[in-house]
Amino acid sequence: MNAAQIAVDDELAARVAWSRLIEPGDAVAGELVRTLGAGRALVWARAAASSDDVATLVTALVDAEPSLGEVRRRLGTAVGRWAGRFADLDPSRDLERMHRLGGGVLHPGSVGWPSGLADLGPIAPMCLWVRGRLEVSASLDRSIALVGARASTSYGEHVAVDLAAGLAEHSTCVVSGGAYGIDAAAHRGSLAAGGTTVALLAGGVDRAYPVGNAPLLERILEQGGSVLSEVPPGGVPSKGRFLMRNRLIAAVSRATVVVEAAWRSGALSTANHAIALLRPVGAVPGPVTSMASAGCHRLLRDGAAVCVTDAAEVLELAGRAGEDLPPERVTETRDGDDLDWASRRLLDALPGRAPMEHDELARTAGLSVGEVRGALGVLELAGLARRVGAGWARPVRGPTGRRP
Amino acid sequence: MNAAQIAVDDELAARVAWSRLIEPGDAVAGELVRTLGAGRALVWARAAASSDDVATLVTALVDAEPSLGEVRRRLGTAVGRWAGRFADLDPSRDLERMHRLGGGVLHPGSVGWPSGLADLGPIAPMCLWVRGRLEVSASLDRSIALVGARASTSYGEHVAVDLAAGLAEHSTCVVSGGAYGIDAAAHRGSLAAGGTTVALLAGGVDRAYPVGNAPLLERILEQGGSVLSEVPPGGVPSKGRFLMRNRLIAAVSRATVVVEAAWRSGALSTANHAIALLRPVGAVPGPVTSMASAGCHRLLRDGAAVCVTDAAEVLELAGRAGEDLPPERVTETRDGDDLDWASRRLLDALPGRAPMEHDELARTAGLSVGEVRGALGVLELAGLARRVGAGWARPVRGPTGRRP
Repeated sequence: MNAAQIAVDDELAARVAWSRLIEPGDAVAGELVRTLGAGRALVWARAAASSDDVATLVTALVDAEPSLGEVRRRLGTAVGRWAGRFADLDPSRDLERMHRLGGGVLHPGSVGWPSGLADLGPIAPMCLWVRGRLEVSASLDRSIALVGARASTSYGEHVAVDLAAGLAEHSTCVVSGGAYGIDAAAHRGSLAAGGTTVALLAGGVDRAYPVGNAPLLERILEQGGSVLSEVPPGGVPSKGRFLMRNRLIAAVSRATVVVEAAWRSGALSTANHAIALLRPVGAVPGPVTSMASAGCHRLLRDGAAVCVTDAAEVLELAGRAGEDLPPERVTETRDGDDLDWASRRLLDALPGRAPMEHDELARTAGLSVGEVRGALGVLELAGLARRVGAGWARPVRGPTGRRP
Repeated sequence: MNAAQIAVDDELAARVAWSRLIEPGDAVAGELVRTLGAGRALVWARAAASSDDVATLVTALVDAEPSLGEVRRRLGTAVGRWAGRFADLDPSRDLERMHRLGGGVLHPGSVGWPSGLADLGPIAPMCLWVRGRLEVSASLDRSIALVGARASTSYGEHVAVDLAAGLAEHSTCVVSGGAYGIDAAAHRGSLAAGGTTVALLAGGVDRAYPVGNAPLLERILEQGGSVLSEVPPGGVPSKGRFLMRNRLIAAVSRATVVVEAAWRSGALSTANHAIALLRPVGAVPGPVTSMASAGCHRLLRDGAAVCVTDAAEVLELAGRAGEDLPPERVTETRDGDDLDWASRRLLDALPGRAPMEHDELARTAGLSVGEVRGALGVLELAGLARRVGAGWARPVRGPTGRRP
């Protein structure tokens, strides 16, 4: 089946073809498909690509579809970019290939299509190529993206593993990019806690990139997760595709957390996409002496990210407070925490050994004698003061120095 | 000289007496002194303290000075708190003592009085007991408070030393509390860079607290700095005085930076005072695995502090951008940074070895053949593409893999 053989109403086949024609994030193709539908858009684009007079075709199109006026001036260039790739289209071959890989293709009409992608508007992907579990929306609609540097430190990897495991324990899918460093640690942490994790690749899902993470991607599939890409099978992960892939990580997740990122890092592009999509962004702080955390600190300084230090704070970031309240932080209580102001002040002045009488206590604490009398009653009841003759002192303590 | 011998118009002697009568932060004394002047306020308080009918005296006072109506109900209690301390007053003895210590006493009428203290209103200190340089306002009016946990880590101390040294190099006075841990590291860092540093103690300036920091305090004095307290000589550093001392650290400084602080830490009280005074607050991040940074991360999460990672960012925080612009961060530049979009995309697609012709490059890069021609011109000029027969490839690189 080539481009000419795709039925105009076969939305899936047409989107599969479009995904081969364009580079990720092609807003002109996005507007064309939104306006005409994928099949009609493909018919028009094929005619334009083989025409000697694209300008006339563009004018006729915009006359018929005025909403395309906005992209009018970019349509000619776009057609020129798609033109060279028409010869290579064969959607049915692609679909068979995905079937053999144990996967499939999702498009916006599919049940499993992640709802967050709609926020991308004309730069939403044409389709998603999927290995592993096809119905990814159930996992992704409550997922968190954990991203970060490939050049990570053991600190960053440790934190990524911990966060991912904590999220998995709260049935939260971890999304990352399948790269070395923080991405791999995030996937591993989720897997170790029995979680579902999704890797969004910049190249085709049939080629593990980087090759060293092939076993990791296999484990993701074995454990019920998915490997996704908007780039068709065989597609090379180029630099531009990496940057565009980052918008998908941000869009499918409820929040994006950067674990480690250098001052200039791809992970920051994911954070910026999340900000543009009005998704919450978190950044994990690290030592200021570590260049691997400089990008996280930059996000915090700019007020672009919230400081997150554990999985509970990440869940809170994602607005899941109702479902997953972060545990109340257990704070050490100290003697006097529950006392009134005067009693606390007197406790502070109470001698350890040589007892003091009322007037001396008043002078020392800066309290009136009446306040001292009242406070001594409170402290005695609480076991924090004892009478010694006519005076008062702190109670005798156990060998640890704390009240037994 | 006892309380009865202080001339009503001797503001300094009267304030020295008040400083012995009250505990730090006594707003009732503050209002009384503000309304009557320190000398008349002392005369009234002495009479009230020895009277059997304080209520009548309070009524007469508020009738004469209606602005004291606000503290009317607290005046009786306050008098009771001051009463026990009148016997011990001897301002001239105190002033001689400070003179012998090589210091003096500042009050709001003194030339060296730090301007920031005015923001404290009725809880401003009555006077400041000073060892070392007496005119502290010149240093303090452009100072930064660096505070943090006593239970610091070597990471936190390292950062505190670095920040303080960096501030000293920009002629910025470092204020801290003279305690172990971060405070000591901050003072040491300033001294090491030849800076002026000020220690604000919770007890009297004649007693080094903690004792182990006595040599450090001496070095501060030798190097032109000062040791300050609002508590008179001999005063014990009680818990309440520590918390009140923290308001002074915040008030005299242009900004407060917390280097390390546990989830519950006195350094957070300094930060909260700074916030209440509308002073900028910075927090230095650290490993999320370190409990010693939990308080800093708490400030960042709450949006109460700005993330700061070096001295330049601290100076920027203090609003000194005009004087001390932080150095432009040097970022690594990479091939293609200064190229237009199409040339970058083509550079990305350009093969390392087997050359490609125009149409293949267009298909690979997702560009039109016209765009490929233009971009090749740009890349060839920049030395980033070379002709090989009818095709194009990346230039041959030096042995490091980077362009020679």
